[in-house]
Amino acid sequence: MTIKSYMQSVGTQAREASRVIAAAKTSLKNQALLAIADALNNDRANLLAANAVDMENGRNNGLDAALLDRLELNEERIDGMIEGLQQVAELPDPIGEVTDLQDRPSGIKLGKMRVPLGVVGIIYESRPNVTIDAASLCLKSGNATILRGGSEAIASNQAIAACISRGLQAVGLPENVVQVINTTDRAAVGELITMPDYVDVIVPRGGKGLIERISADARVPVIKHLDGNCHVYIDQDANLHKALAIAVNAKTHRYGVCNAMESLLVAESVADQLLPELAALYTEKGVELRGCEKTCAIIKEAKQATEQDWYEEYLAPVLAIKVVAGLDQAIEHINRFSSQHTESIVTENAASAARFMREVDSSSVMHNASTRFADGFEYGLGAEIGISTDKIHARGPVGLEGLTSQKWVVYGDGQIRQ
Amino acid sequence: MTIKSYMQSVGTQAREASRVIAAAKTSLKNQALLAIADALNNDRANLLAANAVDMENGRNNGLDAALLDRLELNEERIDGMIEGLQQVAELPDPIGEVTDLQDRPSGIKLGKMRVPLGVVGIIYESRPNVTIDAASLCLKSGNATILRGGSEAIASNQAIAACISRGLQAVGLPENVVQVINTTDRAAVGELITMPDYVDVIVPRGGKGLIERISADARVPVIKHLDGNCHVYIDQDANLHKALAIAVNAKTHRYGVCNAMESLLVAESVADQLLPELAALYTEKGVELRGCEKTCAIIKEAKQATEQDWYEEYLAPVLAIKVVAGLDQAIEHINRFSSQHTESIVTENAASAARFMREVDSSSVMHNASTRFADGFEYGLGAEIGISTDKIHARGPVGLEGLTSQKWVVYGDGQIRQ
Repeated sequence: MTIKSYMQSVGTQAREASRVIAAAKTSLKNQALLAIADALNNDRANLLAANAVDMENGRNNGLDAALLDRLELNEERIDGMIEGLQQVAELPDPIGEVTDLQDRPSGIKLGKMRVPLGVVGIIYESRPNVTIDAASLCLKSGNATILRGGSEAIASNQAIAACISRGLQAVGLPENVVQVINTTDRAAVGELITMPDYVDVIVPRGGKGLIERISADARVPVIKHLDGNCHVYIDQDANLHKALAIAVNAKTHRYGVCNAMESLLVAESVADQLLPELAALYTEKGVELRGCEKTCAIIKEAKQATEQDWYEEYLAPVLAIKVVAGLDQAIEHINRFSSQHTESIVTENAASAARFMREVDSSSVMHNASTRFADGFEYGLGAEIGISTDKIHARGPVGLEGLTSQKWVVYGDGQIRQ
Repeated sequence: MTIKSYMQSVGTQAREASRVIAAAKTSLKNQALLAIADALNNDRANLLAANAVDMENGRNNGLDAALLDRLELNEERIDGMIEGLQQVAELPDPIGEVTDLQDRPSGIKLGKMRVPLGVVGIIYESRPNVTIDAASLCLKSGNATILRGGSEAIASNQAIAACISRGLQAVGLPENVVQVINTTDRAAVGELITMPDYVDVIVPRGGKGLIERISADARVPVIKHLDGNCHVYIDQDANLHKALAIAVNAKTHRYGVCNAMESLLVAESVADQLLPELAALYTEKGVELRGCEKTCAIIKEAKQATEQDWYEEYLAPVLAIKVVAGLDQAIEHINRFSSQHTESIVTENAASAARFMREVDSSSVMHNASTRFADGFEYGLGAEIGISTDKIHARGPVGLEGLTSQKWVVYGDGQIRQ
């Protein structure tokens, strides 16, 4: 069987299964999630054995320590997958809810019903637990899923896929509700992202390079999560205690995450007062500072920032700092350089905050809060399949609702168009 | 200047202008719409002269009568554009509304703010009044627009563009809020749909061929409106008076529209009773009937339908009719053959209606109503930029809200992540 015909058959099966899972009752979907959890729990030895094969191959292929760590399954990580399934079972089911009901002059009653997207394709890299995260969110939101994991995790993913199959079958759902691609051939990805008849949306999870390649080649809508070049702007009317706390937390709470601050903007009139104290706090934590000319004049240890620094997502203990004239220049700088992920203003001036919230064009805009709050769990989504830096469909953290759409529903009593 | 550099400069200007129009107050946007209406009203002679050039070229190039009719501007159509602008000025402004406010355990307050998409690219065919329709909806929803009309309407569209410019300038808005491409070179379309840095979404308006070509080549999200193969299913529990009225209205009210019924499904147990009467009504109106075997056995004048008939959007007085065993087969047939535009069930059985509404995967699903209601005006959107057959972002009639997105807003008082 060629890759093309294999993927076409995966697609056909997914489309058929999507009809069944779209119509499934909440209780049946929750039973399936718990049955998959049971299957994982009963299959620990197999999962660990399959993962050992991947780990051995990874070591032989020279994967670095960070990648090997991401690839590894152990008892604790299996517990994590099981808990994840239980948590998704407890989330409210978005499907079927009818909202915005209104009577129209023609006599029809109009509303919107929340429905699954249909078939979701997920393309991800080394971590095998993504297989369970993604499958569980798609299942709960009534979608069929086609999962394509990294080639380095193929044995682990196939072992997890077998557990998912058993769980689905145990409750009488078709096993094709979740399909895990069983080949490491890259052509399978090429097919998956160019089958609009069978796939309704693609969610790539991985590095910026992977996501850009997929977006460029896809013929199916892609929910993209590119980079997070997040900003905090400390306004002239900021409370300086809040400013220090937020600026330190946004940068140093965790470095390798997309909602960490990468650039700090400071209003000129408070720069002299604020920057020395802030520099001391950052230096204490080992954060390298790169500043504009005015910043460097105030902070001796700061290096001169280049144009590229304003674009950079460091994901590291490095921070770019720019002194700006005020709110206008801050908004302009952010809308020019940010990746439209998350930005925050620190100010006690309500009018300035309102302008910042409205005019900054990012998926999350904040007032007097750390950018680190831009997160599916902090936003109460329960779980997230990614953080979208797109504007179409879903923006920011994408949970169950981001995997759904709404259709129009019309209730009549024999109405016809005049 | 090459087409590429011209389009890059159009894109850069649109992105800059989008910041201004996104932040513009409702009153200013409404003033701009009315100023454009005034400019059109004051420029009637120029508009008609420019259109006469297009009409003359069209006749010389052998455009058929239908295309020439679509291309023509006259006093009445100019009145129509002016009224359209006034109506859009009266629509509520979706931008800036904050909804779904909730307090999170961390102490932050979370909500969603409705925002413009940014820059909308519209690609359309011969009718020059689309220039005003599209520009007005985008302007009201706070978006900058790049319009690319058909080459046959270039003189008319440039004359309309001059009026839009004057209207924008009259109220102090940048004229680049609405840009009309000034070249008929097809390469301009190729650039427009591959500039994700400058264009946030493409809305193609035209035939299925145009839309499929654009979707295949685009590197920017596309809101697609493909075909409308709409179905009515007359259930075994239908009220036959309602069934006759709806089946006749959905097919014969207008033939050339995307929400006209193209296939009729009839439950076997009511076929003998219903089809002869229905056939007489259709025959009276000159509708050609193509039926399955069982239909042809009941309706003598029906031709035998082929497989292709179940896929067909006739846009003509032709109807495909199939007798089905009941609800299950009706849903299966629709989900297989329909274009996911609009489908309606006629039944007095609430449980059957509920299953149909939930399980039929189309942008509008209806109970005891004519498919002809699937329309922006009937749904109270005030105006529509198209009817989306996509599932992502906007489904069904797309009005102002479909040209917007939501961003997350976080209100804190100094909160940091623990």
